Amino acid sequence: MKNLNLLFSAIVMLLFSIFSVNAQSQRGPRVKSPEIHTNNSVTFRLLAPEASKVTLSGNWMAGWGTQVELTKGDSGIWSVTTEILPAEFYTYTFYTNGVKTLDPQNPQVVRDGTRFENAVIVPGKESEVYTVKDVPHGVLSKVWYPSPTLEKSRRMYVYTPPGYAESTEKYPVFYLLHGAGGDEDAWTTLGRTPYILDNLIAEGKAKPMIVVMTNGNAWSSAAPGEEPKAESTPDFSQMARGGFEKSLVNDVIPFIEKNYRTLTNKNNRAIAGLSMGGMHTQTITNTNPDKFGYIGVMSMGLMNNSRWGNYNEEEHKKQIQTLKDSGIKLYWIGCGKEDFLYESVTNLRKFYDDSGFKYEYLETPGGHTWTNWRIYLSELSPKLFR
Amino acid sequence: MKNLNLLFSAIVMLLFSIFSVNAQSQRGPRVKSPEIHTNNSVTFRLLAPEASKVTLSGNWMAGWGTQVELTKGDSGIWSVTTEILPAEFYTYTFYTNGVKTLDPQNPQVVRDGTRFENAVIVPGKESEVYTVKDVPHGVLSKVWYPSPTLEKSRRMYVYTPPGYAESTEKYPVFYLLHGAGGDEDAWTTLGRTPYILDNLIAEGKAKPMIVVMTNGNAWSSAAPGEEPKAESTPDFSQMARGGFEKSLVNDVIPFIEKNYRTLTNKNNRAIAGLSMGGMHTQTITNTNPDKFGYIGVMSMGLMNNSRWGNYNEEEHKKQIQTLKDSGIKLYWIGCGKEDFLYESVTNLRKFYDDSGFKYEYLETPGGHTWTNWRIYLSELSPKLFR
Repeated sequence: MKNLNLLFSAIVMLLFSIFSVNAQSQRGPRVKSPEIHTNNSVTFRLLAPEASKVTLSGNWMAGWGTQVELTKGDSGIWSVTTEILPAEFYTYTFYTNGVKTLDPQNPQVVRDGTRFENAVIVPGKESEVYTVKDVPHGVLSKVWYPSPTLEKSRRMYVYTPPGYAESTEKYPVFYLLHGAGGDEDAWTTLGRTPYILDNLIAEGKAKPMIVVMTNGNAWSSAAPGEEPKAESTPDFSQMARGGFEKSLVNDVIPFIEKNYRTLTNKNNRAIAGLSMGGMHTQTITNTNPDKFGYIGVMSMGLMNNSRWGNYNEEEHKKQIQTLKDSGIKLYWIGCGKEDFLYESVTNLRKFYDDSGFKYEYLETPGGHTWTNWRIYLSELSPKLFR
Repeated sequence: MKNLNLLFSAIVMLLFSIFSVNAQSQRGPRVKSPEIHTNNSVTFRLLAPEASKVTLSGNWMAGWGTQVELTKGDSGIWSVTTEILPAEFYTYTFYTNGVKTLDPQNPQVVRDGTRFENAVIVPGKESEVYTVKDVPHGVLSKVWYPSPTLEKSRRMYVYTPPGYAESTEKYPVFYLLHGAGGDEDAWTTLGRTPYILDNLIAEGKAKPMIVVMTNGNAWSSAAPGEEPKAESTPDFSQMARGGFEKSLVNDVIPFIEKNYRTLTNKNNRAIAGLSMGGMHTQTITNTNPDKFGYIGVMSMGLMNNSRWGNYNEEEHKKQIQTLKDSGIKLYWIGCGKEDFLYESVTNLRKFYDDSGFKYEYLETPGGHTWTNWRIYLSELSPKLFR
């Protein structure tokens, strides 16, 4: 017993050393990365004494796949400093001798499909809404639900707003759909949805609402690694075959309205999606004009009902007429000027204009990117349920 | 409009190509990694044509930091095949010219402190309980709660068992604490808690229960990147100063019992923790003998109340006598034969033996590892609330 203090000290020292190995992630000199300077330029550093080439790829760089070289300095620390960066939530990765390498100094990692990247927020007005703040936080839950339509149990995220647990109130529901290559995780991580909603609700800019983030890949039940049995094989022929779209209406909405305190009329349901999710949104709302009072289409244009080659313009016109007659509170479209789908979005707008169907339109710089989709969520959610 | 089919085809092809770039994560030949062979040996592969050295570190290897070299083959694909591996949930990482590199073919990634590693399950009887199966799944929620004790809002995970939402029943609650270097994410990812509980409950081996996984670092409010403002600096002097321990009793338990349908008597509360969490468990239960009917101490021995040098054996004896008199359903201790705290665990057992205080003890091979802590959770949770 008399050696207890010694033992205790030894354990504390060991735990300290584990922590400091963790913090450095490998032995060697202390490395700080990323370092955000007061002028909002950023220095990225990687300890790689044995590497002969280290590059950096970041989503602020122009052009897909652009990389800049780091310079090797003392003690094997490679570094590069960016220009002054606009306030934003950025993702980046190193390449060590051509192989993708996470920044071992940065615990913030996001997954895009099967690609892992580090994340960094450059502070300022535009990135405020993406930042974790000392405001009331909603609850984010991973929820499995039965899908008789797709004949499997499936996973989704449900965000309930601050105050939900303590109140007896009923809330409106926003269904938020990801794009091809994504899954139910995407809006919660890359999309920053819980942070955006927490911040907008705290400022009184958005109404407290439930947000439901589904998995739009009809062939699978959950994100990679979260599925029972072997991973399912992507089957893009299902992308617009209507299976997911039907399951959202027939399985997801009834599950949510049964298990959460929800307002269950049209004007208390919103739906929006990006890219493939914008296609899903169009299919769902064109074929269910009575379900949603608020509709958002992000970075996706006219292609609904084309169904791999049998687009029926007359049917589409009828659907839009019915949607119009049914009374929609808001139809919102967002697209980047450089989006590869820009022309299809222009066609969709023309189609709606010709049909006398009203919508709000936001055009942003940039392309088919999460930078834009975060902006669209931040712009659209304050307009819901007003 | 007549070009719609062409446009749609172009988009589908683009989405296909994005997906396949994702799957490969970089251009080049198709790489399969990890490949589990029918005899449960595993081949790991990395495409790194420009690298001059690639190594693999896996937690099945003997010795901390052990690495084996991969061999460069055609097309710049490096590979190595393991011996036959026992069925387990393993973690591993590559090093490319000395720099840690995730396996770009494997979407399963877990974080241990600030270290990211890939995960792979080698199938078999021992790893069945860690596997995602087609059984009813509980709900895992990230929940913020007020901590007047620590003067901040803090984050935890709450697992509610399958059937919770649909029923009106009240459930017992298991408080599960992580170790130094970890945070509230640890038991949900490295610990596989939701999968273990789903599987044990589905088999009728564990009773349906709520599991609460807190953040035991009194100086911080949440996992890295999830905290408001700047990251907090680890302050290990708080490790055993009692702040977290008090907050669990004064803040967490009342919050859980107010916001969830819980059974609120002693025999429907369990607590267990690993390493630092085992120390927290001892402090909490020694000073609150009326709160928990089931107590688990994993990989942590006699050090309670030593408080940086003022261990009071007489006080400890009184506490254990009070705990004994109060009637404990189960006191459970688990430790690995090679744990660096093995001797302190032996001392704790001797102290309990001398005090006539009954406990169950499980000794496993191996050391201070998540492999053991997953085993302990799988062994302990079926014994709770019986």
